[in-house]
Amino acid sequence: MKDVLKKYAELLVFAGGNVQKGQPVVIGGNVNDAEFIRMVQSAAYDAGASEVAVDWQDDEITRTTYLRAADEIFETYPDWRVDRFKFYDDRGTVYLHISSSDPDMLSGVNPERIKTLTKVSRQKLKPHSTLTMSNALRWSVLAVPSAKWAKKVFPNLPQDDAVQKLWQAILKAARADGENPITDWKKHRENFTERKNFLNSKQFAKLHFANGLGTDLFVGMPKNHVWIGGGDVGQDGVDFFPNIPTEEVFSAPDRNNVNGKVVASMPLSFQGNLIEDFSIVFKDGRAVEYHAKNNEEILKNIIEMDDGSHYLGEVALVENSSPISQMGILFYNTLFDENASSHLAVGKAYPNCVKGGNDMSEEELKAAGINDSIMHVDFMFGTADMQVVGISEDGTETLLMQNGEFVF
Amino acid sequence: MKDVLKKYAELLVFAGGNVQKGQPVVIGGNVNDAEFIRMVQSAAYDAGASEVAVDWQDDEITRTTYLRAADEIFETYPDWRVDRFKFYDDRGTVYLHISSSDPDMLSGVNPERIKTLTKVSRQKLKPHSTLTMSNALRWSVLAVPSAKWAKKVFPNLPQDDAVQKLWQAILKAARADGENPITDWKKHRENFTERKNFLNSKQFAKLHFANGLGTDLFVGMPKNHVWIGGGDVGQDGVDFFPNIPTEEVFSAPDRNNVNGKVVASMPLSFQGNLIEDFSIVFKDGRAVEYHAKNNEEILKNIIEMDDGSHYLGEVALVENSSPISQMGILFYNTLFDENASSHLAVGKAYPNCVKGGNDMSEEELKAAGINDSIMHVDFMFGTADMQVVGISEDGTETLLMQNGEFVF
Repeated sequence: MKDVLKKYAELLVFAGGNVQKGQPVVIGGNVNDAEFIRMVQSAAYDAGASEVAVDWQDDEITRTTYLRAADEIFETYPDWRVDRFKFYDDRGTVYLHISSSDPDMLSGVNPERIKTLTKVSRQKLKPHSTLTMSNALRWSVLAVPSAKWAKKVFPNLPQDDAVQKLWQAILKAARADGENPITDWKKHRENFTERKNFLNSKQFAKLHFANGLGTDLFVGMPKNHVWIGGGDVGQDGVDFFPNIPTEEVFSAPDRNNVNGKVVASMPLSFQGNLIEDFSIVFKDGRAVEYHAKNNEEILKNIIEMDDGSHYLGEVALVENSSPISQMGILFYNTLFDENASSHLAVGKAYPNCVKGGNDMSEEELKAAGINDSIMHVDFMFGTADMQVVGISEDGTETLLMQNGEFVF
Repeated sequence: MKDVLKKYAELLVFAGGNVQKGQPVVIGGNVNDAEFIRMVQSAAYDAGASEVAVDWQDDEITRTTYLRAADEIFETYPDWRVDRFKFYDDRGTVYLHISSSDPDMLSGVNPERIKTLTKVSRQKLKPHSTLTMSNALRWSVLAVPSAKWAKKVFPNLPQDDAVQKLWQAILKAARADGENPITDWKKHRENFTERKNFLNSKQFAKLHFANGLGTDLFVGMPKNHVWIGGGDVGQDGVDFFPNIPTEEVFSAPDRNNVNGKVVASMPLSFQGNLIEDFSIVFKDGRAVEYHAKNNEEILKNIIEMDDGSHYLGEVALVENSSPISQMGILFYNTLFDENASSHLAVGKAYPNCVKGGNDMSEEELKAAGINDSIMHVDFMFGTADMQVVGISEDGTETLLMQNGEFVF
């Protein structure tokens, strides 16, 4: 197992963030994962990192803070935290994140507190998120199991077995259970080429999504949109994989040209709360109606965070036969669940989803239909009976997905 | 054990830092001690803390950084770190620290790196250390065992037994093994009153230390010096215990009036390196000669860090019969070992060791004989045959300690 974990750590450093000689690295992760985080640190120095700092988190400390700290703690985001990001951003740092949090970490916490802190922190960290979302900085996220997360995914197993089983599922989903995961990921990248080329050459004006769950949605696409998949490329030309695993091809919708209803096909775990059985109605791009059976308040906080969070920032196609989908496991973690299902995101779009987008001003991006927000939250709507049709400028229809599978 | 730990956490919060309603708290500690740190966080909220933040450390991450990071990482101390202290200092934060580090954590690390970073960090954090050393902020340190520390103290025991035994030793030394440690500590404070009153009324001009190990040292005392012991009082009048345990009465020497030779009676664990078998010769207050059998380079870095680190900043009297001394355990941790033995510190003195010192400017303190430095490093020289004589202004001699015990 130690050898497998070492390879997994190396996958994050050499393929995920693709750390280059002389670059600083910041690792974000939980104190309970210290052993794996130390392996990532060592791998990053092997890659030639100039410095590897760790930004430690602890689920229980965070939860207790939300439950017991004074109100004013959530109303401001200290400048020194902003300056810390700026310090590392200015040095071209690679950000690596190890996800392991309990999907229910913040259940029962006053949603107002979460909303308030999310708003002030994302507003103040906008310069940082602009750099990561435009690939001026490279970053990568992977996951390791925590006891609570494992029990959420496998509630009927004893804790140790649940953790063991979640490890197996994660490593399999992440294509990190082979002899040489880094080589496997290079091949994985190439598999997306044909699919991306087809979609990019077609330049559909709209996509129409429909299924038996009730989704009936027209998603307009901006002129010169770009489909991305199988990893990304930094502004310096260095390849990286923001997400491990990744099975999607994605682009940005035209923010003002989305109409119809989308019904979520999986619960959404957002900041330690689970939003279940929800749907959103869009009119001219804007979310005008939404409902959730559980945690509608959290969904409200996401959608109504700012103006841009009422609009879509991502549309992603994932086959129902994707390896992660076929595992049949609900991970309660977007990193995995988004790779089991076609999905959308409300909030900010990746600027490189339109040609030349990384060089456009905020105004130019908006004019091109590329949405902006302090939020970017994915949610799943793909199903085994999903049908997707591409509609060209002249009205020609091309069937893209039938029963959840690509047909081109 | 869980109940004992809860009481120990409460001792740190309610007696050590004496957290008051509405105060922020910052806990510094190691990721391996997360379980205890979470207990401290809860206790701090019980005390009414407005916020409890954790500043996480990890011995292995720190060691790997020292061994593998680029040179320039040690040459600067980022402003955002300074601003973080300022942010919390401005809010009257109580700083709690949980010590558990491996005494050999940095063994084999290039001493130049440690020296360089110590120098830049302490220079930039001077405003913060001035606040803590003048009791403008309250702070408290206690210890919990780590596996490596326990094996250092009890090398012949299996690891789990060593940890268990170090827990027992720590809790006993910290007077935290009774039914109500907080009450025990209130009584403990009172025991120092008579001793402090005697020494403060006598206002000796000099103390003469001599023993068979080779120590023969005259320590001049400044006019209006104050002996402190059994805890301290913040500038706001709130009691606190900076150290758990504490068995010493201490004051500040006259920085320019120390003459003779001191021979250390215990090794000194400094930032993960063990300095052994060392002695220092002082002339008119200044260390003019020093030797160590092991890690003389580290001793050199301490003494030659700045001008003030050549002078003494603390003289502390501890009986050879002190409970910690009687345990006969070498802890390799100053928090414990300094309470088993009379000791000195090179570097900065506590300003409140002279009457009105907290209101004096840097120049006034220096004129009063109170030393300043970016360092403050305690080292032990008390022995079972130590003799201490107080010499009054008029030359009258009063025997203070004979065979390591107080005789007044």
